[in-house]
Amino acid sequence: MSAENVHFETRIRSASQEVVIGRGHRFCLIGERINPTGRRIFQEQLRAGDLSAIDRDVAAQVTGGADVLDVNMGVPLTDEADLLAKAIIKIQSLTDKPICIDSSVVEALEAGLSAYQGRALVNSITAEDERMEQILPLVKKYDAAVIALPNDVDEIPMEPEKRLALVQKIIDVATTEYGIAMHDIVIDPLAMPIGADTASGVATFETMRRIRDEHGLNMTCGASNVSFGMPGRHSLNATWLPMAMMCGLTSAIMDTRTPQIVEAVKAADVFLDHDDWGMEWIGRSRAAKAAADAAAAPAGGA
Amino acid sequence: MSAENVHFETRIRSASQEVVIGRGHRFCLIGERINPTGRRIFQEQLRAGDLSAIDRDVAAQVTGGADVLDVNMGVPLTDEADLLAKAIIKIQSLTDKPICIDSSVVEALEAGLSAYQGRALVNSITAEDERMEQILPLVKKYDAAVIALPNDVDEIPMEPEKRLALVQKIIDVATTEYGIAMHDIVIDPLAMPIGADTASGVATFETMRRIRDEHGLNMTCGASNVSFGMPGRHSLNATWLPMAMMCGLTSAIMDTRTPQIVEAVKAADVFLDHDDWGMEWIGRSRAAKAAADAAAAPAGGA
Repeated sequence: MSAENVHFETRIRSASQEVVIGRGHRFCLIGERINPTGRRIFQEQLRAGDLSAIDRDVAAQVTGGADVLDVNMGVPLTDEADLLAKAIIKIQSLTDKPICIDSSVVEALEAGLSAYQGRALVNSITAEDERMEQILPLVKKYDAAVIALPNDVDEIPMEPEKRLALVQKIIDVATTEYGIAMHDIVIDPLAMPIGADTASGVATFETMRRIRDEHGLNMTCGASNVSFGMPGRHSLNATWLPMAMMCGLTSAIMDTRTPQIVEAVKAADVFLDHDDWGMEWIGRSRAAKAAADAAAAPAGGA
Repeated sequence: MSAENVHFETRIRSASQEVVIGRGHRFCLIGERINPTGRRIFQEQLRAGDLSAIDRDVAAQVTGGADVLDVNMGVPLTDEADLLAKAIIKIQSLTDKPICIDSSVVEALEAGLSAYQGRALVNSITAEDERMEQILPLVKKYDAAVIALPNDVDEIPMEPEKRLALVQKIIDVATTEYGIAMHDIVIDPLAMPIGADTASGVATFETMRRIRDEHGLNMTCGASNVSFGMPGRHSLNATWLPMAMMCGLTSAIMDTRTPQIVEAVKAADVFLDHDDWGMEWIGRSRAAKAAADAAAAPAGGA
């Protein structure tokens, strides 16, 4: 199957807001912070049924520029399904941003989808048969879109050719067996840490170009992963994202609290002609300058 | 002519140091600061025969990361040929970095080439017959490489197709009539200010990809031009360069005193596998941290 010059649009929605992920659109920032992984205090609060910290996380991600919010409630020894449903209901009372429902537990995904008002993005399936069998029927039942990772039980392949073969498998199974539309499949091309293997960067770019040119699918990825283990991580992430956007990446799961990285994406949107007249860029620059001026003003001044 | 998978290497030299510009090599930073344009005090000094300010500019560009130094001595009402020759001799006494000899005056280019020890880069010709007739014999005589801009007398064309036609004209004239080798032609694809026309970014990327894929030529450009007239220029420049590197840009003429922009280039070199094991990146990060720690240490401390 060739899709040169065809590019799909992925539409996700909250009750009142639609976000389109696609080649001709602004890059979609999926805020990753609503996630207890590595946050001991947040985990303890969630275990005690206290979801109040979510308010601050939602505000920070949205203020930072998140278009969509990834929500993960994976806390050991809790009823993740119950927690995820409650978190989603709470977040939808706080913001109109659509949600990416993130869990490795099938029951939690179903509880989240059932509680969600709108059209969700499900994070995630792999090319493993069992994951697809469990999750794709839910994606279809709840009319959601889904993030798919081209790895299987045996390995995370490094070679573009092998990843493309797994992408083809995912497409075949999702569209033929479960009736999922091409535009609802969002591939995570699996960007590996550059510090572990400096050849992996070029391989990932090649994988992304081929997914774009051969299938026209949207892509997302965990953007901070590429700099894992290296110094200067913000600068590495802020450089990698515009390069990946040149190869077809249309979305990323990232912490939008880091201005340098959000700014790099917004600048890339200007150069890719996704920001008419540069108006968003100019508006952001003015707001940043006003905030800096206010911070520099003497305390107690007019 | 198709050169898919062929990519030329441009070699320039001082008396003792060689720099290779090419696809498989680290991006070549050409420091642009040794230039009196827009610098009133420097112009007055040069008019009075005082070249002492050049010491500081050379030091700043080299410290910032310049691999090559662009030298321009275009001051109105001076003997530019004499000034450029003197500047080049002075600079070669200060640094081993090769020089890019930059002038719109043919006699100045010849004086500079004559004074220079090594293999220079000449900045620049256009596709205009007269410029090529005047300058290409000098490039050949002095065994130099040359920067060529795809514009002619009538216009700076926006369409990739027209720019590629002018690149073809330059190649034909330079190689056939003057015996210049392909590897000694470095194209400046003419990156226009994005604020003047937000569609120009995509057109420039397309032009660069085609110059790389159809001709395999090296490219350079004045990197700060893309952000002209926009706020947040450093962030725009730091984002544009890695994107352009994805399209085949192998060099840029830029002020290396801006760490954010140099850092973006060095990060892109990591992802393009031009920095084995990331050792340059890691070394730079350590040096930057040591400098920051030293600056933060209490005055008079050990």
